[in-house]
Amino acid sequence: MYDLKKEFGSDNYSSVSPEILEFIQTINFGHCHGYGDDPITNEAITIIKSEFGNKAECFFTLNGTGTNITAINALTRPYEAIVCAETAHINTDECGALEKVTGNKILPIKPSNGKITPEQITPFLAQIGDEHSVQPKVISITQPTEVGTIYSKEEIQSLATLAHQNNMILHMDGARLSNAVAKMDISFKEATYDLGVDIISFGGTKNGMMIGEVIISFLDQANKAIPFLRKQNNQLLSKMRYLSGQFIPYFQQNIWKINAEKANFTATYFYNQVKNIPYIQVLYPVDTNALFVRIPKEMIKPLQKVNFFYARDPRDTVVRWMTTFDTTTAEIDNFVSELKIIAQSLSIQ
Amino acid sequence: MYDLKKEFGSDNYSSVSPEILEFIQTINFGHCHGYGDDPITNEAITIIKSEFGNKAECFFTLNGTGTNITAINALTRPYEAIVCAETAHINTDECGALEKVTGNKILPIKPSNGKITPEQITPFLAQIGDEHSVQPKVISITQPTEVGTIYSKEEIQSLATLAHQNNMILHMDGARLSNAVAKMDISFKEATYDLGVDIISFGGTKNGMMIGEVIISFLDQANKAIPFLRKQNNQLLSKMRYLSGQFIPYFQQNIWKINAEKANFTATYFYNQVKNIPYIQVLYPVDTNALFVRIPKEMIKPLQKVNFFYARDPRDTVVRWMTTFDTTTAEIDNFVSELKIIAQSLSIQ
Amino acid sequence: MYDLKKEFGSDNYSSVSPEILEFIQTINFGHCHGYGDDPITNEAITIIKSEFGNKAECFFTLNGTGTNITAINALTRPYEAIVCAETAHINTDECGALEKVTGNKILPIKPSNGKITPEQITPFLAQIGDEHSVQPKVISITQPTEVGTIYSKEEIQSLATLAHQNNMILHMDGARLSNAVAKMDISFKEATYDLGVDIISFGGTKNGMMIGEVIISFLDQANKAIPFLRKQNNQLLSKMRYLSGQFIPYFQQNIWKINAEKANFTATYFYNQVKNIPYIQVLYPVDTNALFVRIPKEMIKPLQKVNFFYARDPRDTVVRWMTTFDTTTAEIDNFVSELKIIAQSLSIQ
Amino acid sequence: MYDLKKEFGSDNYSSVSPEILEFIQTINFGHCHGYGDDPITNEAITIIKSEFGNKAECFFTLNGTGTNITAINALTRPYEAIVCAETAHINTDECGALEKVTGNKILPIKPSNGKITPEQITPFLAQIGDEHSVQPKVISITQPTEVGTIYSKEEIQSLATLAHQNNMILHMDGARLSNAVAKMDISFKEATYDLGVDIISFGGTKNGMMIGEVIISFLDQANKAIPFLRKQNNQLLSKMRYLSGQFIPYFQQNIWKINAEKANFTATYFYNQVKNIPYIQVLYPVDTNALFVRIPKEMIKPLQKVNFFYARDPRDTVVRWMTTFDTTTAEIDNFVSELKIIAQSLSIQ
Repeated sequence: MYDLKKEFGSDNYSSVSPEILEFIQTINFGHCHGYGDDPITNEAITIIKSEFGNKAECFFTLNGTGTNITAINALTRPYEAIVCAETAHINTDECGALEKVTGNKILPIKPSNGKITPEQITPFLAQIGDEHSVQPKVISITQPTEVGTIYSKEEIQSLATLAHQNNMILHMDGARLSNAVAKMDISFKEATYDLGVDIISFGGTKNGMMIGEVIISFLDQANKAIPFLRKQNNQLLSKMRYLSGQFIPYFQQNIWKINAEKANFTATYFYNQVKNIPYIQVLYPVDTNALFVRIPKEMIKPLQKVNFFYARDPRDTVVRWMTTFDTTTAEIDNFVSELKIIAQSLSIQ
Repeated sequence: MYDLKKEFGSDNYSSVSPEILEFIQTINFGHCHGYGDDPITNEAITIIKSEFGNKAECFFTLNGTGTNITAINALTRPYEAIVCAETAHINTDECGALEKVTGNKILPIKPSNGKITPEQITPFLAQIGDEHSVQPKVISITQPTEVGTIYSKEEIQSLATLAHQNNMILHMDGARLSNAVAKMDISFKEATYDLGVDIISFGGTKNGMMIGEVIISFLDQANKAIPFLRKQNNQLLSKMRYLSGQFIPYFQQNIWKINAEKANFTATYFYNQVKNIPYIQVLYPVDTNALFVRIPKEMIKPLQKVNFFYARDPRDTVVRWMTTFDTTTAEIDNFVSELKIIAQSLSIQ
Repeated sequence: MYDLKKEFGSDNYSSVSPEILEFIQTINFGHCHGYGDDPITNEAITIIKSEFGNKAECFFTLNGTGTNITAINALTRPYEAIVCAETAHINTDECGALEKVTGNKILPIKPSNGKITPEQITPFLAQIGDEHSVQPKVISITQPTEVGTIYSKEEIQSLATLAHQNNMILHMDGARLSNAVAKMDISFKEATYDLGVDIISFGGTKNGMMIGEVIISFLDQANKAIPFLRKQNNQLLSKMRYLSGQFIPYFQQNIWKINAEKANFTATYFYNQVKNIPYIQVLYPVDTNALFVRIPKEMIKPLQKVNFFYARDPRDTVVRWMTTFDTTTAEIDNFVSELKIIAQSLSIQ
Repeated sequence: MYDLKKEFGSDNYSSVSPEILEFIQTINFGHCHGYGDDPITNEAITIIKSEFGNKAECFFTLNGTGTNITAINALTRPYEAIVCAETAHINTDECGALEKVTGNKILPIKPSNGKITPEQITPFLAQIGDEHSVQPKVISITQPTEVGTIYSKEEIQSLATLAHQNNMILHMDGARLSNAVAKMDISFKEATYDLGVDIISFGGTKNGMMIGEVIISFLDQANKAIPFLRKQNNQLLSKMRYLSGQFIPYFQQNIWKINAEKANFTATYFYNQVKNIPYIQVLYPVDTNALFVRIPKEMIKPLQKVNFFYARDPRDTVVRWMTTFDTTTAEIDNFVSELKIIAQSLSIQ
């Protein structure tokens, strides 16, 4: 069979939680209407509403990029702009999908520990009303951030306040939101709606689902547009039950929390194993399941052969080690042990 | 459990072939790189090449609309246009995705039996070179057509010839291509590449897959652009093995043919049961798995309660009955029997 | 100097009314703010409001295509559609600008005498609410039509009523609106706002201006978006006074009416000279300044050498003869006389 | 008549050079074909070729934004990106037109003295081939820069070399190119084509024309696409002679040079009058016709009443003083004198 070795490349490298595949098996019979007009999708929606609050409307989608783009598309006219961290997935990892599909411009901000602040956004407000400038309309934050840190409740509230005072909208890219919520130990509603978040790109794929993304919207106006934009932006699945259905065990069987806590735990374990190694520098607080680490350049290639991980561009020596729900402490122990051997062989101290 | 009654609504109402779910189960372990850089995807590509020929390049995608839009996007500049039947899925059922995502204009043609001809396309060639007019660049045909008929080999060849003589490209929307190829009883290569087809939107979802679409391209120039456009148009899946992998049993275990032949067979059976009923008029040859039928208007609603199916807009009395790989003759017998009872109760003869 | 022979090709072949150039001369000194924040533009707006009513907001633009596209862009989300005659300028003569720049789809209707009716639009209403279909939002009519005919007041009112009953908007492409209003002998306000027209693409370029287009909007919601969309769609001029200023003499010195009446008159004169020639068939009522004429094919090329005009695509024998404010009856007399000689030489009767 | 006081707001505040209006008067008779198929446009093209070299193809356009967007649109697929200074007009002053109309992403670089360098662009090359990232394709520079400085010949050559070594294209936004070329005292060809510039947005509007922009392209591939994109992007004028014709006196009567030298001269004069005033800090070399100046905040409003000019956003104290071909040294003397009085009254030293 296939050689599918465990790695530290990404949490989307992992397989699907067995309970989710088992659930899919149980719904694999008979016929139901396509595109979400079916009892399984309805049940999934009920469950998500119980997690995010009754105001939450759900629109299941196909991948993270499409979820972000469609959510934002519903909020903006073409001349309106999205303020976000320059490291945001929508700015750096989606091949310009936002600009291409929505026509909107991104106004990037240099983040600290992955986060942006109201003070950094305020200057863009000066261009409101100027026909030569795009009009800031959406603040988009990633929770947890692209470097694995978590915005505090107060930090999110202050961004929501700024947004709403200026007729703007707060969007949350929650591709790994389960990891943040598990760590914060509050409910999804407390982590989003209660803080003033207006719309969420929620992803389960990086935390044990096969394919499972959903726009969770608290905005009536957006709700009218999303079904059409979801279709138009290529995000509507015909055999919807197989996508929406995955959210049923994900929430009902607490898979979201079990998996997220496992990934968060092994990341912290990983951090503890390496934090005192002198030639290793962990760059950000390890709030969830990613370590961004500066290591000697000559170690990168040999170490990638132990367990693959990503290095940034060739001129830099920052790498990312990412854990998932199926990462084991034994795998980390082995990796760290090999790391020390490699360092020794290269005379690094 | 869920009540998932069998219906005649669409072939995307059906479940997933058990063999495909079983295969998914076998690959559900360990890690592999995301986005298609994995051994399962590579094997799927090899298998598809063995069906469509070595020139075929494969780009797995997420849904039918996204597949069409991304394939065509790779072929055109914004001022170039797509010539197709006015009934084409890209023209009527994709919520304007083509215009929105590619910016291209559609030049629609009224089809006969679902098909368009070179003679109907020729007039558009007159606008080549006129800066005030869009430039016809792609001929897009659906095989089988939107009404279930099949273009003959000669019909496709003549369209390919016209296209290539005028620096145009022949795109095939093959969302149900397996049904056509099963009926034609030739190979996929003989049904496409050998006839001059340049690029295919191939879909397995309507024929027993869970989620499985792929752009099959024979054009070097398009191949360079598709990976970027696939990402940008929201069609790239992270856990790719679960999508690409479905094509392995689909082709290796001949599921494509077994399923398509079942659906085609029951559609023909259906046709034979109703063709002599005087108040029933089947509108097109039943080449694959759909019947388009004119029936007395007052019968539509009671009959939809027996087994759901779609009626066109309220002013018309044309309905579509669609079979799938899991449709049984018993279900058809029961439906036709109820149809006759309803007709009698309404005094229709 | 240049050889600039008078022709029947188009009303945009003509020169600029001398009074307009003279006015430009009088404002050619000193400095004023760019982009429309100047006293000349303000005066032009006041004058246009006096013609179209106080509800009219004015946004000066650069060409007809840009005016149409920007007006419609302000009215629609990408999944909304424009219903119009298949002969509409936005559908056939703007190189797909609408689809490219706004992303909207056009739903074309076959017109009679250039006009569309509420009955033809009604079927599209059935797709409202269906996420797979574009949502009809704008009815766009051209006044006078592309074939030079005029919608009656009642015809426009009935289209406006249908639009407003269905949450739609009535857009008027008025590239030659002066010609229609001159013929109808009513005010601009009576010909537009009073009939329920919501927004107008008004053009003066074909009637004696050098470059002069303006969006005249009666819709508060659109007014907020238009300045940004005008900039984004490349329709905002920096030295605005030279564009907006042309509208001052155009309306104040009644140039719009004098020029339009001249063009309309010579078209009627033209019609009277040819209507009884047996091998000439004028296809539509000559309400304004265009004649669409079917003539023997072999006459087209020799006749184009007398005075150039446009023929449709090579398979057809319909030509357009267009008069302008500077067309003379002598030019028509000469043309008709040559026409007869050519017919005779070709033995046409 | 209108009160059109001279100011330092922008060079597009000024009027039109009388010679250009006089030329327009001489061509204002008769008919000619629309959209550029006329003898005046042909003559203008011949003249521009004599300035920029025979390889130059000319496409007249309507405004600066449209010129930039259309030129770049012809060079890129939607997933390709434009590298430019973060201060570039396309990035900050065009209301997101590039993102909206072309779908391309901008990759901004922090400039020094308004300029970007090959070293700053090199890091973006690392993302070539990565399907998750936009692909850098165009380097766009502004000459003179947004702060009025001039790229040296060597600086442009090194950017062209980097571009061409990496299959990229060098675009020049030359909205004020005449001012740079006049200062460099070389020919237009020496300042562009000979240095490796591939395509130019050339503007005459800021230097004495009424409305006059043109794409000057040295790229065969782009030349095929531009006519269609110009139409589609709303940049094609019907009465073209009135636009293209302005370039005839502009070049033949040396207006470009006379006007540019006047504006450049008065800017240098302006600089000399203020450079030794202690509370005034001129931020960049005054290579052409703009001064960017840091002045005490409380002086800005009173000084704007003397002669209007632009201040940046409210938190900053940098202002721009811009001269034009009709600025006089007397106006500058008066302004500087008032400046000193205001400073004194505010006790600024």
